[in-house]
Amino acid sequence: MARLKDIAEQTGLSVNTVSLALRDSPRIPPDTREKIRLAAAALDYTPNYSARALVSRQTKTVGLLLTDITSPLLTQVARSVEQELKDLGYVTLLAASNGDPKEELRALATFRARQVDGMLVYPHDHSRLDHLRRLRVGGTPMVLLAGNCEGDVDVICLDEQAGALRATRHLIEAGHRRIGLVDGAYLRGNPAKTEGYKEALRAAGIEPSPKLVIDPEGHSVGHGHRAFARLMALAEPPTAVLTANDRLALGGLRWCQEKGVAVPHDVAVFGFDNIEYAEYASVPLSSVDYPSDDLARKAVARLITLISDRDQSLLPELVRIQPELILRESTRSRP
Amino acid sequence: MARLKDIAEQTGLSVNTVSLALRDSPRIPPDTREKIRLAAAALDYTPNYSARALVSRQTKTVGLLLTDITSPLLTQVARSVEQELKDLGYVTLLAASNGDPKEELRALATFRARQVDGMLVYPHDHSRLDHLRRLRVGGTPMVLLAGNCEGDVDVICLDEQAGALRATRHLIEAGHRRIGLVDGAYLRGNPAKTEGYKEALRAAGIEPSPKLVIDPEGHSVGHGHRAFARLMALAEPPTAVLTANDRLALGGLRWCQEKGVAVPHDVAVFGFDNIEYAEYASVPLSSVDYPSDDLARKAVARLITLISDRDQSLLPELVRIQPELILRESTRSRP
Repeated sequence: MARLKDIAEQTGLSVNTVSLALRDSPRIPPDTREKIRLAAAALDYTPNYSARALVSRQTKTVGLLLTDITSPLLTQVARSVEQELKDLGYVTLLAASNGDPKEELRALATFRARQVDGMLVYPHDHSRLDHLRRLRVGGTPMVLLAGNCEGDVDVICLDEQAGALRATRHLIEAGHRRIGLVDGAYLRGNPAKTEGYKEALRAAGIEPSPKLVIDPEGHSVGHGHRAFARLMALAEPPTAVLTANDRLALGGLRWCQEKGVAVPHDVAVFGFDNIEYAEYASVPLSSVDYPSDDLARKAVARLITLISDRDQSLLPELVRIQPELILRESTRSRP
Repeated sequence: MARLKDIAEQTGLSVNTVSLALRDSPRIPPDTREKIRLAAAALDYTPNYSARALVSRQTKTVGLLLTDITSPLLTQVARSVEQELKDLGYVTLLAASNGDPKEELRALATFRARQVDGMLVYPHDHSRLDHLRRLRVGGTPMVLLAGNCEGDVDVICLDEQAGALRATRHLIEAGHRRIGLVDGAYLRGNPAKTEGYKEALRAAGIEPSPKLVIDPEGHSVGHGHRAFARLMALAEPPTAVLTANDRLALGGLRWCQEKGVAVPHDVAVFGFDNIEYAEYASVPLSSVDYPSDDLARKAVARLITLISDRDQSLLPELVRIQPELILRESTRSRP
């Protein structure tokens, strides 16, 4: 393996100059930097990151913690994050908490042990963020990609409450009064969508009914299938259903198809996230769009700013991206 | 931050003993190791991986290179890999080549620069693996998760050719003679599925027709939708279609539904990968199962073995996992 010394010999410059040039120091003139980079490339020089990290105290590594690595939405975010970071010379350490708070703590400890320069985190429980706040206050650059906290830590997220509110309002305006909700996140520390749903109902003078809110006990298509079976078995089933994600809605559509329940005529269905399968579902699915690329770009930009802010002079920001509704056949009004 | 010295002072042992104990050296008695570990935990000691990596020449990091991070199948593999590695004390560096050979080279260079202990790679082009072979021969522990190479590098993969062969044979046995294939991977260096399809046809005395093989020019649901439109517009459209993945098949099902083409009566559809959406599709989709957990477990186990094999005495292995067919309504025979 080529070393700095080899590049120095090759170019007739000092090891120190070579080292500064490869770190793109402005102390070295641009054409000298270019010459050194070419020599490094010719020698197939690979920087030793472990040694460099000890000196610079930067590892050029960012930890990305997802709650569920198989969610099409989070995967899309992970893809955008990885691409954005790569272009900035960072690598992405991947971890998943898989709905387990202990796994979340373990992943955060691993990120710390690996001395990542910063973290991007989907928190497991949106209402319990103290351990994340402590890390941020302790000097770890961090951006949360969801959550409901105010102060102490940066959040860049979709406004989930506004999304659920708008979707529910759309259903009310289409004439629905008995609107079901499939969302178990409330019980797991993410009340945003349930709150938005209730807010829209109350604004229209409809008292939310606990019977119409079902916990699917999971996020998958199969969980949605079973949740619809329970919801539609009510003495007075809903005429419209909002689900916390599109996978649940796709399971619901399949249940309706099996039972001869016509969508949207017998029941309208509104999903959340607008994943690629929504558009091509057996009844194309209305959904709240999740702008994953935009969110990833903003979160990475903010994290890099925080990493550069060595004296921690920046105050935390809370950015809520406002969602758009994508309307398709599954909520079309009766003519 | 606590240091080794603090643990040594706390326990009254030498820094060297503490260091060996924390690396689980058998030179330290088990009860001493336990005592030191407890003291380390009490002091919230975090090992400095950069320093440790310089000494041990191990980074406890594995690079995982996917072709497409948004494929539900590859995501499932990534999830299993991350979990398996975590349990063994490794972290996962994530990268995606996104169908671009230059991105693949860049990711491999990044992995090398970060001195990963090993790599798990989905190669972009299954027939051009020389750059990966060179890394392996140069001493980088590596397992490919797909590919068609013999010798020089370890491969643990699903036998894609056998999967396509069996699916096609199943369609032939159900009475189909005009069987379409939606698979563009052949042109992009992965001939396995196309070869399996042709092999099954020839074994049944059916000459493969190039007209019946469509390149969807992508992997998404939308690409499948457009590919079916082209395939079914033929003067003699197929009575059955095999697709290279389930996303393509789901797009095809949607096209059939829009056009009033009945599945399986007018056209049978066979997918590949058995993703969660297959079972709940508007017509439940037959598919070749991709055993992602099993494959991830085997690949990680093999990689760890290669990492431990410091004198590179092990010869490369080629493991092809034999696929199962999951039969559902989309290929049910007419009674």
